[in-house]
Amino acid sequence: MSASAAESLAHDAAPSVPRFPLDQWYVAALGWELKDQPLGRTLLNKPVVLFRTADGQVAALEDRCCHRALPLSNGTLEERGVRCGYHGLLFSADGKCLEIPGQDKLPSKAKVPAYHVREQDRIVWIWFGSEAHPQPTCEPPVYDVHSSGKYLFDGDVYHYDAPYQLIHDNLMDLSHLGYVHLHTIGGNASIHMNAQMKVEEIGDVVRVVRHMPDSVPPPTYTAAYPFKGNVDRWQEIEFHVSHLRIWTGAVDASTDAVDDPERGGFHMRGFHGVTPETDTTSHYFWTMATNPKSDPEAVKAKVIEQTILTFDEDKVVVEAQYRNMCRFEGRPLLDIHVDAGANRARRIIEQLRNSTR
Amino acid sequence: MSASAAESLAHDAAPSVPRFPLDQWYVAALGWELKDQPLGRTLLNKPVVLFRTADGQVAALEDRCCHRALPLSNGTLEERGVRCGYHGLLFSADGKCLEIPGQDKLPSKAKVPAYHVREQDRIVWIWFGSEAHPQPTCEPPVYDVHSSGKYLFDGDVYHYDAPYQLIHDNLMDLSHLGYVHLHTIGGNASIHMNAQMKVEEIGDVVRVVRHMPDSVPPPTYTAAYPFKGNVDRWQEIEFHVSHLRIWTGAVDASTDAVDDPERGGFHMRGFHGVTPETDTTSHYFWTMATNPKSDPEAVKAKVIEQTILTFDEDKVVVEAQYRNMCRFEGRPLLDIHVDAGANRARRIIEQLRNSTR
Amino acid sequence: MSASAAESLAHDAAPSVPRFPLDQWYVAALGWELKDQPLGRTLLNKPVVLFRTADGQVAALEDRCCHRALPLSNGTLEERGVRCGYHGLLFSADGKCLEIPGQDKLPSKAKVPAYHVREQDRIVWIWFGSEAHPQPTCEPPVYDVHSSGKYLFDGDVYHYDAPYQLIHDNLMDLSHLGYVHLHTIGGNASIHMNAQMKVEEIGDVVRVVRHMPDSVPPPTYTAAYPFKGNVDRWQEIEFHVSHLRIWTGAVDASTDAVDDPERGGFHMRGFHGVTPETDTTSHYFWTMATNPKSDPEAVKAKVIEQTILTFDEDKVVVEAQYRNMCRFEGRPLLDIHVDAGANRARRIIEQLRNSTR
Repeated sequence: MSASAAESLAHDAAPSVPRFPLDQWYVAALGWELKDQPLGRTLLNKPVVLFRTADGQVAALEDRCCHRALPLSNGTLEERGVRCGYHGLLFSADGKCLEIPGQDKLPSKAKVPAYHVREQDRIVWIWFGSEAHPQPTCEPPVYDVHSSGKYLFDGDVYHYDAPYQLIHDNLMDLSHLGYVHLHTIGGNASIHMNAQMKVEEIGDVVRVVRHMPDSVPPPTYTAAYPFKGNVDRWQEIEFHVSHLRIWTGAVDASTDAVDDPERGGFHMRGFHGVTPETDTTSHYFWTMATNPKSDPEAVKAKVIEQTILTFDEDKVVVEAQYRNMCRFEGRPLLDIHVDAGANRARRIIEQLRNSTR
Repeated sequence: MSASAAESLAHDAAPSVPRFPLDQWYVAALGWELKDQPLGRTLLNKPVVLFRTADGQVAALEDRCCHRALPLSNGTLEERGVRCGYHGLLFSADGKCLEIPGQDKLPSKAKVPAYHVREQDRIVWIWFGSEAHPQPTCEPPVYDVHSSGKYLFDGDVYHYDAPYQLIHDNLMDLSHLGYVHLHTIGGNASIHMNAQMKVEEIGDVVRVVRHMPDSVPPPTYTAAYPFKGNVDRWQEIEFHVSHLRIWTGAVDASTDAVDDPERGGFHMRGFHGVTPETDTTSHYFWTMATNPKSDPEAVKAKVIEQTILTFDEDKVVVEAQYRNMCRFEGRPLLDIHVDAGANRARRIIEQLRNSTR
Repeated sequence: MSASAAESLAHDAAPSVPRFPLDQWYVAALGWELKDQPLGRTLLNKPVVLFRTADGQVAALEDRCCHRALPLSNGTLEERGVRCGYHGLLFSADGKCLEIPGQDKLPSKAKVPAYHVREQDRIVWIWFGSEAHPQPTCEPPVYDVHSSGKYLFDGDVYHYDAPYQLIHDNLMDLSHLGYVHLHTIGGNASIHMNAQMKVEEIGDVVRVVRHMPDSVPPPTYTAAYPFKGNVDRWQEIEFHVSHLRIWTGAVDASTDAVDDPERGGFHMRGFHGVTPETDTTSHYFWTMATNPKSDPEAVKAKVIEQTILTFDEDKVVVEAQYRNMCRFEGRPLLDIHVDAGANRARRIIEQLRNSTR
């Protein structure tokens, strides 16, 4: 049991250490959120206005007009950029003021900070960077589940009144399925709790793999796919600092190698972007992709409906957990067996925070 | 006029003095609140989960799983205790962890604090105790109005955004009936204000008795009881540190001794458990018992309905009073005649707080 | 560009300087708000109860009973004054306690502070005064638009989660009409932005006058008045420390002198009382008067409806601005051309605050 990980969960590092690893691409939005209106969102404690320019590119500026501080997200989009909704100052995607109505001269101070943003596989990523790395040091993550055409998917953004690492904990440990998701996908707690779990660490990535061979398929699975009887199930969790991939699925028992990337069967592939809003609140961007055998739209709708019920339950638990951690501030936590993966993720974040101080 | 009581109301004692007398049984719940779900409630600043075990006993634990701090009140009840709703740890009524799903060994730290609770006459009492008296030094109060079979009663729990002593003040002085309860039981302010009041102190108990001989019975009384005309009314308030008994009633004028405990006539016997939730908020547990002459369920329903209206009015006034005391923090208050009983109660609490520091 | 005005907007003066000029009559209420109930309202950080006495005079007391601190605004009005809704203490318009129910002797401390209030032209004004001037040094402002009989008018009180000077800024600069009021009275931003603006300062008054000759009348104007075609429009803003007058209107183009006080045509005369509630919140009392040519009640109703829509939009913008100023606390603001009038108003307030410290 890892006392230090539990300590980092209860207490926090020195105040000079940033709360979040800074040299990362974080999810700022799902691509389809950016349409004809600017979108205001606080990310890593910074209020940002996100928008799509006339040519379809994504842009992100500080969400504050330099004149009288109205959020630019209260403004409107135009061909050339975003126009403030108070006195009409117009700003381009790089933060330059293009027009001050009623005034010819544009002072040099008439500008707002711009941030690095990229859209990749329908996810909008933002880079804030540490002082050492204001420019991105890598490309944003690829997630071709959204682009390959093999899957139907949908997704949404949830707001959490809880710090981001509690969402990581929740996602890294699927043993809670049997208790939290009692009324949706869960049920047989002992299968989940006793499944053999393999945890491995590759650089800043943690992989948790659990196999449940020859088990009864859950209702969502049988509704979505013509299984013949018992199945070999897998749960593969891949933790990256700014997001997780949770890929689950099943094949008919003993018909395929469950650890073969090209395995067949039924798949549910979840993307989970966890972006700190503030030190104590978070954005949770998720998509769920699936490969129905037949009646694809109906099956997708069913999978999304179940996913929403499940994620709603997680939100209730994690927010209740955080409120209680605040009530019992500073009290130590006890680690148990199932925390292995989550604790590795915490150590990686701890190291990255300290290295970008 | 008692300057010191008014001062203690406006200002507060030294911070090292506990806000509440600790060596007391406080009401934690009404017995019928504990059914098939655990109940989370903060009492004297301590978050507690209350539940009833399989054999019907009441139990109280710290409302926090020792693993990841989820409130145990978010969990479920089982034969052997309460199971956490996140990862399924199971705790017995004495706080011992009986099971960690997916793990054989139960570490010695796997436990949560348990509190002393007792159910007596359908009221659930809790003892926190000072450092000197972690074990109860007495039995919880008896209240046989709930058990004698002579009365019909019902009750409820109200939450107050006001510190507990303002509720004492409200209950100790029934002269406010004529102003606050104008639209329900009140009306004739001068009768209430000018009734002779006797205040006596017996140990930590304050008794305020007011008699209103040969007066017109209020509507609730005439509806509930076949009075012949004017009545001799009594109001007997008994302040105990953790609860009050307010027993009122009437007999036909000059037909019985109103100070005889065995007097006949119509009775309304109120129990008022006032338990601090935090320094500035409170739980108010009340029951109202009555002895209708005929049509008992209908009369009881009427008495309870009137009681609810009345207590709702009190809550509005006391919460408005507290908000205003905060706005005018530190400003002195002026004592008047009617504060005699309430001020004695405050002095008792002051002494008990200082003695359990 | 005035760096110092922008600085005063972003940062604030020394804490010993009062947040508001104190030696002023501020609007406390619209006359018709005071009917048969006492009205509680915080003004310049002071909780006040306002009421009308039996002879129709207005009165203002500290909103706190000296006994147990209940707001007197929770009480009731009587012939002789306001009676507390808890224990029935009765206070006259000058704050004297006239009665303590159940007690013969009235102690000398039984009283509450009274404030200077006057009703003038259906506006209720209050004077708090600095230490140097607890007595009013002048009469409250006259506003005979409400009394002359030439206009129909109506009005309301809005609560702003923003400090009072941001409302001044909003009202002093009508260039925002083209952006904020896009969906109501606005539309042609360039006309508003490019109108010649004259700013003059007379003592503590700032006048901003803008003329829009030979312009298309806005829809409200044409609905209210039989204009023949293009019009000569005016906007006259007069800033006083505690209120603004914004008089706008139009005549048929080239038919009258728009700067003649006796000019004809269509008029919309707005009164805007801006009274700090607290350091960060405000009351905004407005009335709008007009002189319809025909169908007066219908035209007035239309004008008021448009005014409400417009002021609702302003509230949204100013509150969003203030929230964002808090998020970006201490960040400098950039002045532009249109801020000239507002900045003069800020300098006047700055001087008055410093002179009444």
